[in-house]
Amino acid sequence: MIRLIGFDPGLRNTGWGVIDVRGNRLSHVADGVVKTEARLPLAERLVQLHDGLSQILEQFNPDEAAVEETFVNKNAASALKLGQARAISLLVPAQAGLAVAEYSANLIKKTVVGGGHAAKRQVQMMVGTLLPGAALKSADAADALAVAICHAHHRDSFEARAVLAASG
Amino acid sequence: MIRLIGFDPGLRNTGWGVIDVRGNRLSHVADGVVKTEARLPLAERLVQLHDGLSQILEQFNPDEAAVEETFVNKNAASALKLGQARAISLLVPAQAGLAVAEYSANLIKKTVVGGGHAAKRQVQMMVGTLLPGAALKSADAADALAVAICHAHHRDSFEARAVLAASG
Repeated sequence: MIRLIGFDPGLRNTGWGVIDVRGNRLSHVADGVVKTEARLPLAERLVQLHDGLSQILEQFNPDEAAVEETFVNKNAASALKLGQARAISLLVPAQAGLAVAEYSANLIKKTVVGGGHAAKRQVQMMVGTLLPGAALKSADAADALAVAICHAHHRDSFEARAVLAASG
Repeated sequence: MIRLIGFDPGLRNTGWGVIDVRGNRLSHVADGVVKTEARLPLAERLVQLHDGLSQILEQFNPDEAAVEETFVNKNAASALKLGQARAISLLVPAQAGLAVAEYSANLIKKTVVGGGHAAKRQVQMMVGTLLPGAALKSADAADALAVAICHAHHRDSFEARAVLAASG
C-alpha cells in the first residue's frame, strides 16, 4: 500500500487530495483546500500556505507527492503570482523528504477522463467515479485528487525519469 | 540600531545582503549568494534555497527584510519560474516573524543611484561607495545590498503602508 497526495496550487486556494493505492485499487482518504487571506501581505499568505500544507502532511503522512504543472497561457504577472504559490506545494513535501512529481494539466485530464481537452466538470465527475465515497469539498480539491490519481498511474515512469535525471 | 536584510531572488542564485542602520548611517555586515544545483528537481532546489536563506537569517538575525519586486517583461514561463524562487525569499523571513517589504527595481535604482534607469554596473559602484568596506562577492549580492539600502530609506513609509493595508 502506498499513500499519495496531490496538489492544485493557487495563492487564494490550494487544493489537496490524499489517496491510497493497493495494486490497481485506489481509495479516497481525504481532500480539502488551504485558503489564504487576500488582505494580508504576500509573504504572510505564503506562510499561511506553508503552515496549512505542513499540517496536512503531518496529519496524513503520505509517501509521495504530485503537483500540477501550471498551464501558463496568461500574462507574465499572473504567472509570477502563481509561481509563488506553486513553490509552496513543491517545497513542503520536499522538506518532508518526499519525492515530488509534476504532471501537465493535459496528462492529468487524459489519465482521469481519457481525453486531454476534457472540461473541468468532467474531471470532477470522473474523480467521483474513480474514488467512490469521496465527498468532494470543492473544485480545487477535486483537481488535487485528479493529480494524485494521475501520479498513481504514472509513478513508475516518473521514478524511472527521476533516476535518469539524477544519474545524467 | 536596526539590522536589515535584502534579497535579489533567483532560482539559480539568490543574492542576499545584510546592513546595519544607525540613524542616517549605514554599515555593511555581510553579503553573498545562495546557489542551487540545476541538475536537481525543482522541489529540491526550492528546499536548498529555503535551507540556505534560513541559515543566513539565523546567523545574522536581521530585524526586517526586503525583496526586489520582479520586473516581469519576459515570457510567462520565465515569470512562473522566477515566482517560484521569489516565494522562498518572501517565505523565510516571514516564517521568522519579520516584516517583509517589496520594492520595484526602479525605486531601488532611484534610491541608490538617483535615477530609475541606471545600469546594473552603476548600482554596484554606488553600493560600494555607500557601504565602504563591503567586498561585494557578486552582482547578485550587490543587488541584494541595494535592496537593503532602499529599505533603509523607505522603511518608514513602508510601515505606514503596512498599517493602512492591515486596517483597510
